[in-house]
Amino acid sequence: MLRIDQYTEVFVEYLNSKITEREPKNLYDPINYILQLGGKRLRPVLILMATDIFESDHKKALDAALAVEVFHNFSLVHDDIMDDAPLRRGQDTVHEKWDVNTGILSGDAMLINAYQLFENYEGEIFRELAKLFSKTAIEVCEGQQYDVDFETRDDVTLPEYLKMIEYKTAVLVGAALKMGAIVAETTKINCDRIYEFGRDLGIAFQLQDDYLDAFGDPKTFGKQVGGDIIENKKTFLYLTALEKLDPAQSIQLQHLFTINPQDPSEKVETVKQLFVESGASEAIQKEIESYTHQALKVLDELDVKEENKENLREFAQALMYRSV
Amino acid sequence: MLRIDQYTEVFVEYLNSKITEREPKNLYDPINYILQLGGKRLRPVLILMATDIFESDHKKALDAALAVEVFHNFSLVHDDIMDDAPLRRGQDTVHEKWDVNTGILSGDAMLINAYQLFENYEGEIFRELAKLFSKTAIEVCEGQQYDVDFETRDDVTLPEYLKMIEYKTAVLVGAALKMGAIVAETTKINCDRIYEFGRDLGIAFQLQDDYLDAFGDPKTFGKQVGGDIIENKKTFLYLTALEKLDPAQSIQLQHLFTINPQDPSEKVETVKQLFVESGASEAIQKEIESYTHQALKVLDELDVKEENKENLREFAQALMYRSV
Repeated sequence: MLRIDQYTEVFVEYLNSKITEREPKNLYDPINYILQLGGKRLRPVLILMATDIFESDHKKALDAALAVEVFHNFSLVHDDIMDDAPLRRGQDTVHEKWDVNTGILSGDAMLINAYQLFENYEGEIFRELAKLFSKTAIEVCEGQQYDVDFETRDDVTLPEYLKMIEYKTAVLVGAALKMGAIVAETTKINCDRIYEFGRDLGIAFQLQDDYLDAFGDPKTFGKQVGGDIIENKKTFLYLTALEKLDPAQSIQLQHLFTINPQDPSEKVETVKQLFVESGASEAIQKEIESYTHQALKVLDELDVKEENKENLREFAQALMYRSV
Repeated sequence: MLRIDQYTEVFVEYLNSKITEREPKNLYDPINYILQLGGKRLRPVLILMATDIFESDHKKALDAALAVEVFHNFSLVHDDIMDDAPLRRGQDTVHEKWDVNTGILSGDAMLINAYQLFENYEGEIFRELAKLFSKTAIEVCEGQQYDVDFETRDDVTLPEYLKMIEYKTAVLVGAALKMGAIVAETTKINCDRIYEFGRDLGIAFQLQDDYLDAFGDPKTFGKQVGGDIIENKKTFLYLTALEKLDPAQSIQLQHLFTINPQDPSEKVETVKQLFVESGASEAIQKEIESYTHQALKVLDELDVKEENKENLREFAQALMYRSV
């Protein structure tokens, strides 16, 4: 077993070795560009780690790890078009650097390239990987659609919100870990458990993101603190506050989520106060803790050497107590 | 063996049986919409036909046929966004009826759905189908990119143009037939030959399209005659004429392909005259004939009962002498 930063290094080296100039340039240059923009490489690292946990060799999982990273970046390219986002990781988005049509077509090619990477596996492993990948990819699309739909709906429920973040974010974390398990050819029950672990952790991760977006330290949080509030995003905090506030305050909060003041600082402060007073900020912290504990419980049941679980446990703890 | 119209009927019935309302509606309604817009269903029919030719049962090939039709429609949805096309088969395009973001995301889901349909096949058949599908899908993306690139290039060569239409159109015809062969579990050499047959026929089909666009009968040709000329598209006719004309006429033709007159009828007539005088219209007819003959020659070498080749031969002849 390697350390997390070592897995990252192994993966990035492999990724870079696969980047080559190809024709037509306008199709492949944007793909190479987005893949080299960086990012935390969380998902591929989890695949490599999972393979080692089940006593196989993480080198066998490099193509599956690359497939998941290519898919993740495909979804970023298309999502950035849909959100009309100018920047990704501090650099121009693909549709900004080239154009929307290039973003669409290069994204399509990335999705297909991801499938092709599974061809490096034989027989049942190929089938299992491709099947899990398709199921997950469709869920990510559905999650993205729910997210878009929620923007114009005013009757979104908490369970609906949790399902959305599960599909949009968490299933890919679960699938990444399960792919490592599949490559390692462990038992079906281990495959399912590590998937659950990843999914629960993914939900905790996204809820933590919601929390930090409002209450994170501007010095360490990567994005603009209060961004979700400024954009009137119906996050867990907002939906919980609406439920818990008295009718008058609830109407006030709803109203605040219809306005877009030029200087949003007062709005952000008032909303944050309502999040605290309503108990929503406490509720989300409990929810994060609950999903993390659920994940760690599943980890306990995993049928592997105790010492092999350490990396995953550390990983979970780091996510739970992160401030960025 | 059925007749072509019977295969179409069997396929459309299967397609309709698979159309169900699903959530999220904004993701799946556009998919159901585009799949039910109609179209000739050429590619799925070829899959079914190929399965029977190799003495298997076309019913086994229905999911592969559906996968290819779903993929074809995915590419139409994304291409229509890129071309900003308002109409498809006389009806609103998906991005026109919904919006661009819906077109992007529903298209993505269709590409994934196509892969999922192969999961209905076991072991090696699944692998072979998915592999051929990925290879073909990437080529279709590359063909589309070359097509886009050619719009702004003035040094496109004939071989480049032929490669573009091969990738954009013909490889999917070849792949469709080969998928039928794979499902029928025939020999590898038969698989490769029927692929070649389809690819050559696909190129002939696209060249015929170029020819009819300029010289087709307005009464029977589905699209606006002269459409490629009006849009200054560098087709086989244009590229060949440029090569064959004397320098003065060549400059005249190049000039005509830079203007966009309000009433294009005079431009269309002059260009058509240059296509005839240069010998380009004769050259394209020879090229169509040559690709069709090449296809039929490969068909001769196919290791199946002679009578089973009849449908494909008819199909090829019909394409060669079509006026629509």
